[in-house]
Order: sequence, then structure tokens, then C-alpha cells
Amino acid sequence: MNSSIVGKSVPQVTARQKVLGRALYTGDLKLPGMLHAKVLRSPHAHARIVRIDTTAAAALPGVKMIVIGADTPARMWGVAHKQQRILACDKVRFAGEEVAAVAAVSEDIARDALDLITVEYEELPALLEPDQALQPGAPEVHAGSANLAKEIRIARGDVDAGFAAADLLYEDTYETHSQYPGYMEPMATVAAVDGDGRLTVWTSTQSVFLARARFAEALDRPVSSIRVIQPTVGGGFGGKIVEERSSLIAALLATRTNCPVRLVNNRLEDFQSGCFSVPCRIWLKMGMMRDGQIVAKDVRIVANTGAYAGLAPEVMLVTAMRSDNMHRLKNVRSIAQLVYTNTMPRGAFRGFGGTQMSFALNSHIGVMADRLGLDPIEVHLRNAVRSGDTSVHGWVFGSCGLPECLEQVKKEIQWNERRSRPKDVGVRRRGVGIAAAMHVSGNRTLGNWDGSTVILKVNEDGRAFISTGEADMGQGANTMLAQICADELGIPLSHITVLPPDTDTSPFCLGSLASRVTINGGQAMLKAVREAKTQILGAASALLDCPIDDLEIDDGLVRSRTRSNATATLPQVCRYHVFRHGGEGILVRATYDPPTKMMDADHYGNIAPGYSFAAQAVEVEVDTETGSVALLDSCLADDCGKAINPMAVHGQSNGAAVQAIGWALYENLQFEDGRVTNSNFADYTMPTANSVPSLHCAIVESVEPNGPLGAKGASETAILPGAPAIANAIYDAVGVRITELPITPEKILAGLRVKLAGPNA
Amino acid sequence: MNSSIVGKSVPQVTARQKVLGRALYTGDLKLPGMLHAKVLRSPHAHARIVRIDTTAAAALPGVKMIVIGADTPARMWGVAHKQQRILACDKVRFAGEEVAAVAAVSEDIARDALDLITVEYEELPALLEPDQALQPGAPEVHAGSANLAKEIRIARGDVDAGFAAADLLYEDTYETHSQYPGYMEPMATVAAVDGDGRLTVWTSTQSVFLARARFAEALDRPVSSIRVIQPTVGGGFGGKIVEERSSLIAALLATRTNCPVRLVNNRLEDFQSGCFSVPCRIWLKMGMMRDGQIVAKDVRIVANTGAYAGLAPEVMLVTAMRSDNMHRLKNVRSIAQLVYTNTMPRGAFRGFGGTQMSFALNSHIGVMADRLGLDPIEVHLRNAVRSGDTSVHGWVFGSCGLPECLEQVKKEIQWNERRSRPKDVGVRRRGVGIAAAMHVSGNRTLGNWDGSTVILKVNEDGRAFISTGEADMGQGANTMLAQICADELGIPLSHITVLPPDTDTSPFCLGSLASRVTINGGQAMLKAVREAKTQILGAASALLDCPIDDLEIDDGLVRSRTRSNATATLPQVCRYHVFRHGGEGILVRATYDPPTKMMDADHYGNIAPGYSFAAQAVEVEVDTETGSVALLDSCLADDCGKAINPMAVHGQSNGAAVQAIGWALYENLQFEDGRVTNSNFADYTMPTANSVPSLHCAIVESVEPNGPLGAKGASETAILPGAPAIANAIYDAVGVRITELPITPEKILAGLRVKLAGPNA
Repeated sequence: MNSSIVGKSVPQVTARQKVLGRALYTGDLKLPGMLHAKVLRSPHAHARIVRIDTTAAAALPGVKMIVIGADTPARMWGVAHKQQRILACDKVRFAGEEVAAVAAVSEDIARDALDLITVEYEELPALLEPDQALQPGAPEVHAGSANLAKEIRIARGDVDAGFAAADLLYEDTYETHSQYPGYMEPMATVAAVDGDGRLTVWTSTQSVFLARARFAEALDRPVSSIRVIQPTVGGGFGGKIVEERSSLIAALLATRTNCPVRLVNNRLEDFQSGCFSVPCRIWLKMGMMRDGQIVAKDVRIVANTGAYAGLAPEVMLVTAMRSDNMHRLKNVRSIAQLVYTNTMPRGAFRGFGGTQMSFALNSHIGVMADRLGLDPIEVHLRNAVRSGDTSVHGWVFGSCGLPECLEQVKKEIQWNERRSRPKDVGVRRRGVGIAAAMHVSGNRTLGNWDGSTVILKVNEDGRAFISTGEADMGQGANTMLAQICADELGIPLSHITVLPPDTDTSPFCLGSLASRVTINGGQAMLKAVREAKTQILGAASALLDCPIDDLEIDDGLVRSRTRSNATATLPQVCRYHVFRHGGEGILVRATYDPPTKMMDADHYGNIAPGYSFAAQAVEVEVDTETGSVALLDSCLADDCGKAINPMAVHGQSNGAAVQAIGWALYENLQFEDGRVTNSNFADYTMPTANSVPSLHCAIVESVEPNGPLGAKGASETAILPGAPAIANAIYDAVGVRITELPITPEKILAGLRVKLAGPNA
Repeated sequence: MNSSIVGKSVPQVTARQKVLGRALYTGDLKLPGMLHAKVLRSPHAHARIVRIDTTAAAALPGVKMIVIGADTPARMWGVAHKQQRILACDKVRFAGEEVAAVAAVSEDIARDALDLITVEYEELPALLEPDQALQPGAPEVHAGSANLAKEIRIARGDVDAGFAAADLLYEDTYETHSQYPGYMEPMATVAAVDGDGRLTVWTSTQSVFLARARFAEALDRPVSSIRVIQPTVGGGFGGKIVEERSSLIAALLATRTNCPVRLVNNRLEDFQSGCFSVPCRIWLKMGMMRDGQIVAKDVRIVANTGAYAGLAPEVMLVTAMRSDNMHRLKNVRSIAQLVYTNTMPRGAFRGFGGTQMSFALNSHIGVMADRLGLDPIEVHLRNAVRSGDTSVHGWVFGSCGLPECLEQVKKEIQWNERRSRPKDVGVRRRGVGIAAAMHVSGNRTLGNWDGSTVILKVNEDGRAFISTGEADMGQGANTMLAQICADELGIPLSHITVLPPDTDTSPFCLGSLASRVTINGGQAMLKAVREAKTQILGAASALLDCPIDDLEIDDGLVRSRTRSNATATLPQVCRYHVFRHGGEGILVRATYDPPTKMMDADHYGNIAPGYSFAAQAVEVEVDTETGSVALLDSCLADDCGKAINPMAVHGQSNGAAVQAIGWALYENLQFEDGRVTNSNFADYTMPTANSVPSLHCAIVESVEPNGPLGAKGASETAILPGAPAIANAIYDAVGVRITELPITPEKILAGLRVKLAGPNA
């Protein structure tokens, strides 16, 4: 390894084109003859489609195609359940469901055409809350489903015995709400059919290959007849994995018109068709010993998947069990139900179900520590898993920096000093809170493969191209891959191009989800570049007549360690690798599939090659007059293993922290008859700079043996502890425990009123 | 191998999109903000550029950029000699040389802008003919060159002793002229700079990687900063390898404007900037024994490369020696001189110098056979190399079907019957003529590598993508690759997509030249698909619990030969190849570099893995009143080894035969002060349907041990024998020997007048 670029903070390799406004997003694409699409959506949460009349719309000059449900392939698509067609047929199941789509020569004409489509609906009773849906005799969102999309039961050890032995038992119910991913770039797709009838789709996606599989299923055509290309993506946060539907509509219209079709959501449309996180009601009961040891945990979850179950079953599984693994637990039990309602579909979101349980668990530990007179940090430390442990669900920790994360944030936030300040003084009161969490780096869940393949070409000028199907949607995957490559070849980052994912030319990969790319993609990259280096040294050995072992690459030169005159430039060696008898261009393919296991039927098994941990401590100031909460300080420590690019890790930590702040305090979807009524950034209030304090991020570099150069994932864990840390800090400040998100001033004022009224009020 | 698709006539895999008008040619590309370029050319064959004033042109609304020589990188580019900049600096050396270029918002404005550019020239004496250029004291086209771009001297055996022993000595001088490639699609380029400053060039090319190297050299930037993509190409014929200049101009304008730039030649412009074949004067002396054995051959060549030497030195080397190899010769000598003149640059053209010597040699053999009372076919057969031979220049023939080609055409044309008809009767007289020739399939000439790499992906649906840097410019390379792949995998052609060459994603290849793709690309393909098949069978073995040896692939199924219930579909197996522990997508890279040698300093060595042979017999009717020649019949036998796609071979044979007819009889560049004056298809008369008889093509399938499934190249050999076969047939018909191409009615009438005047006139 040369003067290492791994571990060095470097700007993203995509930064220059982005800040210059030259990055090509899907919405920037213009193709000759391109049509523009708009989508007509159901205004009703539940209704039968009696009749659709598109005559007037079709007669509007400039309208080229109108499709309705009957025009879509009969084959159903879906992740867990095959239950959707590209447009609603017969019934709509949520307000916003896609009923018809228009392709026209301009967006304006397409939008006008929507107004000319007449849909006659017969309204049906709408199930807007899981409780309604679970009522015996409730109407069914999907016939025969009993409104249950999934039920999970997990039990380890003897929970009841644990409770019996515990010094303190405590139970409570927590409510978490749905969050909109809020990426900068709304969903965008351009689809076109080529001269051979193949379909090319440029789309904002986290996984070109999963997108291709979904297009194949929904359009009922072979995967090889479809090409998916990922242009620059302006954020995904889980919302662009496999659940969104607008790209399917664009693709359908392209195949029907034989013209390129562009469908780019505006913000309203993106709220209407976007992927939201899964709201959960979590009942949690825990038994704790006087010293803080958690001896038993019991969980009931009711989660709302909305009208369709995409990845929500997987999300709920995470809610039900992931956080169990960060503590040395023996006795745990979860029963989780995923319920259909007539609301928009929910599913993947950064943290993938972890945030919901993190809020409940860390709040719960806060309460119990308080009751036992313990420091919650000590409770976490008392229970935290350590490197080498195998968790209650069979997860094996090659590395674990959870204790260090807790110590870090404790120190950074001046925990002891700030906690011991006088309470209940003044209008504005300050408090501190902490939370801890964990996440996976990879997840062997899809067809018993969690691998990644990288193709590395080293060109005749000694510069390199990296091709992979893993996605950079802003999080820094490309930079990570380029750094590993640059480091090993001793070339500058500027000599490396990471090609955009393209299903025709990229190797098959699963894409960017489950924080899997750093370990799995990174290991494939490392394997590829080491093989390429071996080939380069082999060629240099022949060229310079030196033994391979005597050669090193440094700063663009291949040279002998012992013969000072035996030197060739990297371009010379790379040219020689081609231009000789039996030569060829350097083109290496390497695959890494981690040594993990699929969960067994009992949800047991070591699913990830590595696990990331995080802890966060915050200081808040609560205005007891208005109930408003100001965040004064935040310290987040992320155990991401070796930080390949500390600047990128900080970016992820800060971004995740802010997204958690938004979820905890500000973002608040409003519904009316199942319709979201605040589908814009004026009314759906994501945190802006003035509501975010200076964020402190520490990196805990546990060295992950399965990780490339010791690295783990660093993009999701940091979103997990924010909300409960804030809730705990609010409790520390004003003694009010908020168990239902978001934490609004109204809820705090209500809590203060209850508190003032006294325990017997 | 399944019911073989190799050896079956199938339409080109590119045919459907072409006949539907949906194939995307470079000129069809439209990019947002694209500018249009036009080029200002020198009206003078030789002049000093005194001053260029672009002020008025720059002021024309819509003009975005004007570049002149001073704006081009100082680094010189060129194949053999680095002697050109992208636009002429200081001097122009031929009429048509590029002096300035304009990028504007429309083609019309760009064209208007050209009229507003004032160039002040100081005319210099122009060397329009090689003889002038070789005069002692002649001015030099390039200072210090003595107007010699290359001189080649080759001698084997003892030519003088051979002459002394010969029964008949005969010498004559032959003149061949320059041919325009006449592809359907004139040169077209779209160039654009991306957000990272990388240059993407879509261009009509026969080799994306050689194009990339040329762009890198001419623009003085690293190859990795350039991406070259080959859209559908409408013919190359050698004219789109590495010599044309318009793509460089488009690329330069794109880098200067940061906008996409389109430069598409109209036909006039393509004549002005196109690549023409090398005109040669060939003096040939041959000694022959009474039985037809050729005992010695002496050659002098003066070839005209025009103002710059691109591939012409290589072309002339072929003229000087290639045809020696098709006969069992011992004593040969060549001295060849490539001369600079103030005419347009000449270079690669289908046949690559072979046509020139083929005309001389076959005409010569016709005369000598006649003088010895021998059948020229017998003379060829007497001398022809056979499989297993090593030629006078060290070429090794693993396969040789030359004798069979001669026998085939002899039979097809009814040689004996038609030859023995009464002569000198009537106004319209008929005669038959034959010629034989050979060509390489591959050529180890560029940096001691003639290899090819193919990447094969087999997708989860059991369909395949082939990626290679070899080019299909209409000749059928993609179909050939797809057939080899389909055959081995037992899938239909429609399940295979051959991806367009793209330097970012395709493996490094040399491209389509020297008829190299069938052997070298085909072998790489075969290697790749066999490896993929092994992987598929390996996965099936695990899936079906069968030994690999027991498994076969047939009609989309993998099945046990012995257990009838052990069957899986190809998609099932391909999915299983990914989705299992340690799995991955099937992605195979295979390289084939043939077991050939670079020529040594003495031009000796076995340069090609295989050699193709052809013979052609034609019947003509000469109108003795008008001198016009009508071709009545043509039989061409091509020894292309195993014909992977007979329909494609016939297409190549017929196309080449027609191009030879054009060269022999119709195509005739007219010059005035070095300017071509018939730069259009009305005045430059390529053969149309009414001048081409029904063409008979026979395929001689010698099995080439180095070829994939026995195949060799089949795109160039067939152009070689046409012109001399026609000349020989004309002689047979009317006793007039034309030694200077093209064969015009005037020349025939002049020959008839001389003949009528008698030998003593």
C-alpha cells in the first residue's frame, strides 16, 4: 500500500460535476421525439373503478397515448406478494393510486389531458388505521388476506422466567409515524425502446438489477430485453429500491408508444407516489436487574404497510428483532403483525425498520435506568455486545465498537456535567439524552446471495475504469471503490472513473441497500484490484526482467526494490500487458460473497458479514411556555470499522442525524380521508439549517475482519439513535416522556400539564 | 453442439432494426444543446497560409466557435509518421485539407460562416504525380522527406538465376487508380464533454479503441479521458479505421465549446475528406517454365500516398509481397516506393493493397499463359500453394482451398466451353477471364498483438450479452459472434444481444481490419462461451445432483443424458448460478491471441492465423463499336474456411465483386489541379444494378485449424480477383490487353485500333 488514500478525507469523486451543475440526472435527459407523461391518481382511499372514459383526453391535440389498468400486463408484480398491476384495475386501494397515465408532446398537455379523463368510482369503506383493519369482520383490502400482510413470531430463551427473575419490570407502548424520504431529486424516469425492441430505462434507482427484474416482472418480458441505466441520483434513502411505481408507468408508455417517454415527479407527485417508512405501534415489556442487566424482553408490533406490501415484511422483521442483537440478551420474544390499510404503501427507508424499535427501546431503557437510579449509558454498557460475541439471534460480531461509541458521546456531550445541572429551573430547560443502536452491513436475504462483482479495467495509460452494479446515490460508494482501487495501484483518484451502473455492461449486483456496498462491493473491489496489480507486476516482471517479488508500484512507477535502474511507468507496463504475444487488456472480474447465512425458518442466523454500531447524545432546550424543543448539541459516534473516507462518513452521520431530527421533531404527514394533505416542503417541514445545531461526529474504527481493509457500512446506523436521544433529553430537561412521534410542542405542553397536575391528577 | 446454427444462413442480427429504419446511426443522434460543425478546406493543392481572418464569421449570430490550426494541440498525430495536426498549420498540402472549422447552432449557419472566413494563401508549386515528386530537386511535401514516405526492399532466393532458367520472360507495367470507399453512410461524428470533462465520441468507426488512441494523440489527452462509442455503421471498407480526420475536428470543437458537436459529412464533403485507396504503378517481370511454373518474379512499385502517410506504408507492403504467398515461389524481389504528392491522403481500402498487385499479377499470368499456350487456370494450379505449405515469406497454411476455388469457378463459368467459342466474330464479342488471389485473416502487425477479447454475460433468463471491441460495420461480425454463442449454448439467436463497442465498457480489441475478426474474435467468443457453458453445467450439476459429464444443454434445457427427470431450464440454472452461496452472475472474459509472428526486419514471418483464397471467373461482352463492356456472368469462389453464415459470406462476396467491377470499369476520380471534380454519385459512377450480372458465389470450406470451428475471414479476399478477371476476359473477347485501370471504352477502342493496325503499325 502506498501513501494511503484509504482513510483520508477526500471529496466525493462525483463532487466536481455536481457542484458545477454538470452531473446528468435522469430529468436532464432529452431524447429525440421524447414524450412527457403524467399520471392520474385515485382521489379515494378505497373505491371500485366503474368506468374510465378517455375519449376527450385522447382527442386533445398532442396527446399520444393514454393507458389504464386494462392496458397493463395481467401479470402481477410485487416483492413479497405479487399483488399489483402497473395501474389499478377494478379497484383502487389508496388515495393516490395510479389509475391512468398520459403520454403527450409536452408536460403541460399531458397534465391538461388528465383533467379530461373521466373516472367513475364507487366508493368503498376505507380502512385508514391498522386497528380498524384488524377488527373481526372488517372488509379486506386484499381478498383472503384477513388484512394481514405478514406475521412474525420469534422467541428465544425463557422470557417469562426472565421476567420472574427481574428486579424491575416495565412496559409501555410507543407509536412511530411515517417519514417521507425527502431526497433532493424526486423520482425520475426516461424510457425508450430501441431498434431491436429492447427497452432502455434511465431511472433514479438504488439498484439497476433489481429494477430490471421488476420491469421484467411488471411488463412481463425477459430481463435481457431490458436495459436499466442509473444516471446521477440525487438521494434514495430506501425510497428508490424496488417499490416505487412511476418508473414502471414510464416504461409501459414507452413500450406502447415506441417513443421515449419521460416521467419526472414534481414534489407533490413524489409525495403521492413515493415510498414512506412503516409506521409502527410497539408494545415493549422489559425485565431488568438492579445493575442494569436486561434479563427479558417482550415485544408486540402492529405495523401498517398500507395498501400493498413491498419490502414492509422485511422492514417489520428488522423492527422485531434487530435491536435484540446489540445487547447480550438471552430471553426475547416478538410478535409482529403487518397490516393492510387503505393508505399509501410503506416500506424501505434508511434504517430499514431499525428507527422504529430504536425509539421504543432507547426510550424504555431511559425510563428503566431512571427508575433504578442508573445512568442509561451504564445500562447500555452493562448489556452491550462485544467483538467475538454471538448474539441471541446468531449474529456473529467480528468487530463491535458499541462500548467505544457510548464512551465517545458521553465524553463529547459532557454527559456527567450537563446531567447534573439543576433541573426544573426557568422557562427554558436543558437536558441531555442518549441512545444506542446497531445496523447490518449487508444482509443475506435475497435468494441466498449477498455478493458483489466488480470489473476493473486498467487502460493503456495506466488509468482505471471500475464497473459495478452497486449504486452511488450520493452516499459515496463510487468514492469508496475508487479509493480502494487508487490505494492499491498507487494512482491518484483522478485517474479512476467509476462507470454508471448499466445492466447491459455492469456485472450483476444487488445494489445499494442494507448498507451492504462498503463490505461486499469493497471486498470485490479489493479482490479485483489486487488481481490487477498481480497482472501488472507480472507484466513488469517480464518487461524489466525482475522477479515479481522485487517489484513495487509507487506514484505511477513500477520499479525494482533492489535495482534502481529497473523502472517502468505504469502506462508502459499496461501497454506491454496488451502488446505482446498472448497479451490482452487488463480486465479483471472479481466477486465477493460474504461468509454469511440466510436466516433459518426461526429467523436465526448470521446474516451480515459485519455490523455497525452507533451512539448519540444530544442536549435539548425545552421552552416550557411554548413546548418547543431546540436542539443545542448533538454528538454521534459511528462504529463503521475502518473509515475509508472520513469526510464521507461524517456526511452520512450528519445527514442521518438531521433526518432523525426531522422524524423526531418536525416531519409530520397530515391525512384527510387517507389523503396526505401536506405534500410539499412548505407544509411537510423537514429540518432546515436553523433547527440543526453544529453536529459532532466521531468515528469509532473497530476493525472488521470481513471488511475491506477493516471497513463496514456507514450510511444507515446513524439515523437510528436520534429520535430516542431527543426524547430522553426532553425527559431529562422537563420530565415529560413522549412515546408517540413526532414530538410536537402540543404533546410536550400536554405532558407538562399532566406533570403539573401531579401523579394523582 | 446442438442442431447447429453455425453453417446456417441467417439474416444479420442487425437486419431487423435496419430494415425498419430504427437502427441508430451517428447522424441520428440528437443531444441537448448540440452544435453543428462545418469545415473549411483548402482550394489549393499546395499553399502557405498567410493569414486567416475569422472576425466576420465569428460575428454571425449562431456561430459559437471557430477553430483554425493555431487552436489545435501542437502534438502531431499519424499512424506511421506523426506529421499532421487536426487542422492545417502554416501550409496546406492538398486541395481539400482542413483549414478551419465552425460550430454553430445549425448546419446552415455553420455553412454560411465558412463563407465569411477569409484565408489568404500564397500558392506553392504542387506535386500532383509521383513522377514529379521523385524528380531530383523537386520541392518537398514534407521537409527532409525527399518525398519518400516509405521504401521497401524484399528479396528471396535468386531472381536473376530464376530468370536465366526460365523458358519465357515477360515484363510489363500496370497502373491502378484510387477508389473511393463509397459506403452508404458518410463519416459522421457526435462529440460531447461530460460533467467530469471526459470526452465522449460517437463515431462511424471500424475500431473504437484505435479511434480512442488517435483522439488521445491528436487532442493530446489520456486515452482514459476519452470514450468512443460505435453506433450502427453504414459501411467502412477500410475508410473508417484510423485515417479520417473529421471525427478529430468534431472532438476538438466539443472540447473547446463544452457543447455536443455534430459533424456529419454530406457526400461532397465525404469525397473531400474521405480515405481513398493507394494508386500504384507496378512494373512486373516474371520468368515461367514451359509447364507454367513461375520461377522468378521481380517487382517495382511506385505508390502515391498523397499529402500524408497514414496506413499507406502498410498498404504498400501488402502490394509488394502478399500475392507472392499464394504460389510456390522461390525467387522473388520487390522494391516499392511510397511517394508524397500534393493530393489527398490515401491508405486503407478493402483488400488493403492486394487489389493493386492482383490486377498486375493476374493480368501478367494471363499474358504469359497465352504465350505458352497454357490455360491460366492450369498455371495457377501448377503454382498454387497447398495446405501445409510454408510460403516464400514464411506464411504457414493450415488450410488452403485455392485449387478448389479455381476448379469451382472453372466449372461454374463453363470455362472450357466458353473459351473455345469462335473469336473475332460480330460487333459484340464475348470472352472469359479468371483471376486468383489471397488475403490474410488477421495480421500481427500492431505492437506484436493481434488478439481479441470477448466478454460474455449469461443473464438470469438464460439469454446472453456479448461485449467486444470488434466492430460490425455491416459485414456481419455481430451475427458471426452470436451464431457461435447460440450454437454452443443451444439458444436461439434472438436470445443474444451483441452490445455496441464502447471503449469504457468493452474489452480492449483492435477492431475490424485485416479480415481478423472471424478468426480472432470468433476464437475469443468460442473460448468464452465454452467457459460459460462449463459454468452453467457446473451449476446444473449442483442443482440437479448430476455429474457434469452427464449433462447437456439442448433447446433451452439442461438435462441429464441418463436420468430423464433430471432437467432444469436454462433460466433456472442461470438464476441458481447467482443465487447460492458463493454465486455470481455468469460473466466470462476470454482472450485469443493467435499463434502468429510479427514479420522480422526482412519482412519474413507467419503473420496471420489463417489465409483466405479466392478465384473468380467472369464472362464479358465487349461492344467493338463503342468499346463498352458488359459483364454477363461472374462466378466467385471464396475459401473462407467453414462458412459460419453462408448468407453473410455471399453478401460479402457479392458486395466485393461489385466493388471490384466498379473499380475495374466505372469508378474514375477526375482531378483538376489536384482537386477532385466528380465528388458525387452522379459523376463518380459506382455500379448500379443494371451493370451487375447475376453473381454466382461458391464457398470453399477448407477447414482452418486456427479458426473457430474451422472458419476464416470472408470480407476482403473477394474484391481481389475481379478487375484482372475482367481484364483477362476482355482480352479473351477482343484481344486487347488493358494494363491501366479503369478500363474505359476509350481505352478499349484505342486498343482495338492498335490491334487493327497490326503488329508493325
